[in-house]
Amino acid sequence: MSSGSNSVLVQDIGEQGLLARLQRFCPPDIIGDDAAVIPVPEEGKSLVVTTDILVDGVHFSDRTTSPEDVGWRAAAANLSDLAAMGASPLGITVGLSVNGEVAVSWVEQLYQGLTYCLEQYNTPIVGGDICRSPVRSISITAFGQVASHRTLRRSAAQVGDAIVVTGVHGASRGGLELLLNPKSGLHLRETERRSLILAHQRPQPRLDVVPILGNILSPISLVVHNNKFDGSARHGDMETRGRGERKTCQNRIGGLLAGMDSSDGLADAVVQICRASGVGAVVDRNKIPLPPALNQLVSLEEVWDWVLYGGEDFELVLCLSAELAEVLVEQLGAGAAVIGKITTGNRVWLTDSSDIYADEELSLSRGFQHFGNFRF
Amino acid sequence: MSSGSNSVLVQDIGEQGLLARLQRFCPPDIIGDDAAVIPVPEEGKSLVVTTDILVDGVHFSDRTTSPEDVGWRAAAANLSDLAAMGASPLGITVGLSVNGEVAVSWVEQLYQGLTYCLEQYNTPIVGGDICRSPVRSISITAFGQVASHRTLRRSAAQVGDAIVVTGVHGASRGGLELLLNPKSGLHLRETERRSLILAHQRPQPRLDVVPILGNILSPISLVVHNNKFDGSARHGDMETRGRGERKTCQNRIGGLLAGMDSSDGLADAVVQICRASGVGAVVDRNKIPLPPALNQLVSLEEVWDWVLYGGEDFELVLCLSAELAEVLVEQLGAGAAVIGKITTGNRVWLTDSSDIYADEELSLSRGFQHFGNFRF
Repeated sequence: MSSGSNSVLVQDIGEQGLLARLQRFCPPDIIGDDAAVIPVPEEGKSLVVTTDILVDGVHFSDRTTSPEDVGWRAAAANLSDLAAMGASPLGITVGLSVNGEVAVSWVEQLYQGLTYCLEQYNTPIVGGDICRSPVRSISITAFGQVASHRTLRRSAAQVGDAIVVTGVHGASRGGLELLLNPKSGLHLRETERRSLILAHQRPQPRLDVVPILGNILSPISLVVHNNKFDGSARHGDMETRGRGERKTCQNRIGGLLAGMDSSDGLADAVVQICRASGVGAVVDRNKIPLPPALNQLVSLEEVWDWVLYGGEDFELVLCLSAELAEVLVEQLGAGAAVIGKITTGNRVWLTDSSDIYADEELSLSRGFQHFGNFRF
Repeated sequence: MSSGSNSVLVQDIGEQGLLARLQRFCPPDIIGDDAAVIPVPEEGKSLVVTTDILVDGVHFSDRTTSPEDVGWRAAAANLSDLAAMGASPLGITVGLSVNGEVAVSWVEQLYQGLTYCLEQYNTPIVGGDICRSPVRSISITAFGQVASHRTLRRSAAQVGDAIVVTGVHGASRGGLELLLNPKSGLHLRETERRSLILAHQRPQPRLDVVPILGNILSPISLVVHNNKFDGSARHGDMETRGRGERKTCQNRIGGLLAGMDSSDGLADAVVQICRASGVGAVVDRNKIPLPPALNQLVSLEEVWDWVLYGGEDFELVLCLSAELAEVLVEQLGAGAAVIGKITTGNRVWLTDSSDIYADEELSLSRGFQHFGNFRF
């Protein structure tokens, strides 16, 4: 065993010692009490809370994931859940389970990864717990705020809505493949390999979509930026109020848009939204944006499996009027697309406007089943 | 294996099946999105957040703890952290890690136990996560609200403050002993045995203390309920304002009281408060209330070990002016007591006004060290 700092184990410095080392990742004013006092949501906003657990050997492994990446991905998954509600982050708590033989440097790098991801969104670690456990795991709870009328709900999809993806799917699964079988990607360009691996190791929660959505939905920006919308207002999508200059977007009952993130796969997201909203959908395979180079890595059949069911891409799947969808896709840029529309009924069909594939029904049973027998 | 519902395993019904069964423990309106939208703190209050992990084999065991008790204790520990901040609960999230071979009934009983404890305080389960892990663990994050000027802080103790305990210590450790070695308590009365075992299995977070503290600190109640306090106002503990009828309690800089819970033991709580406040303390052994029957269970030496270091009694340790302390103890009733006072310096002494024991210095190193080598 080397005498460097890498060889210091958790049991060598104890709980208090470990806490002392981790305090540098937290704002100084929240340390040292039984609980953290954090900023309250702004006037007129709701509090949004989400929680996630990552377990060694299930959600991460030293073989494919450095402690920094574990931290980044844990933070990203929770921030993505906030984005999926249309919320902006306020803070997170971190519950860490490790055994005494874990290197202190592993824990510090984990917190470093958390912090790297969180810093992009000015989100502090506001508290946590450390405990001894034979299995390493990280449990994160994230808090955010959202204006009540801007909350994204799975149950708010309406017949006729366009279905938007904010980016490509299957890239995270492709990156995992490159980490598990490095030889499989030797014929790819370095930039393509890096891009897929980054998608797996450092996924970006789509919190950037939240203000863009807010902007699109805000009456003033609609009038100023997109005159097309003055037109659509006449068709009931928008409503003119007051003195002619102010228009509010009332494109649906209650004003809510539908959405969720695609952490459990693109197919899962569309099916979950349809189930929660009591509607069906048609998704056009030909319109789903694919990550470049994925089809050079595996067969086309496997590409589609990863795109639909791979999961962990942390994009958003949104349902909104065709007109708003068009503006949103334009503002989001590369990777964003309208991939289908919400229909009556309760079935979700994957069609193909290029007529290569036969129609296929999408269902939850094909998706990622954490406890399904076939996973044991 | 029986064919009853006890034999249904998590892997038989999968994640979706398990989630469906657990939804009855949550308010219906918070289910089915990526995150929960929960009530915001009231105007002028701060958000308080705390998180805790319980691990099978470390914090609970099937030998001493039914799944209902695991749930109850997990809820109680987190609500106790809110009480320790002077906060009232808004909701909790539950992160559950289990393997597929765990009985569904075990999980349901766990949630039942959580709910039994939470219902006493009208606190909903507002969200959570379930994941597969070789080791069962429960991670809970609790949210509450507190009026900023009523927040209890470890760092707010002042020289001259009385130290109050809200109840007896050592009872939880005594109950654990009876569960581990049932024969050891055969000579106790049934009510005594039950009382100690309940203290371990169903500890009560002292959320009841929060409104009592609020009442004592509120200017009107002081004037109305306790004329003694009109007197103490003249000594600087209170300040008369306005038209003579309204008095505000300004018994300290910034108006904050010091406090924390005794989940890691009574000695730990006193030492932590002193360390955070940069003060010392003298605690009189003779004034510490003991659970009845504990001295019939083990030697007096062991009784004191349990009282000072046993932990998990979930009482509050509070530091406030002697006058307020007297009123508080009177209102709390049985088990509450002034056990010492805050001094200058940075050492914490356990003295004995009955002159049986020699003075002893209390320190953190004697307390519960989750990662200390001696625990491995």
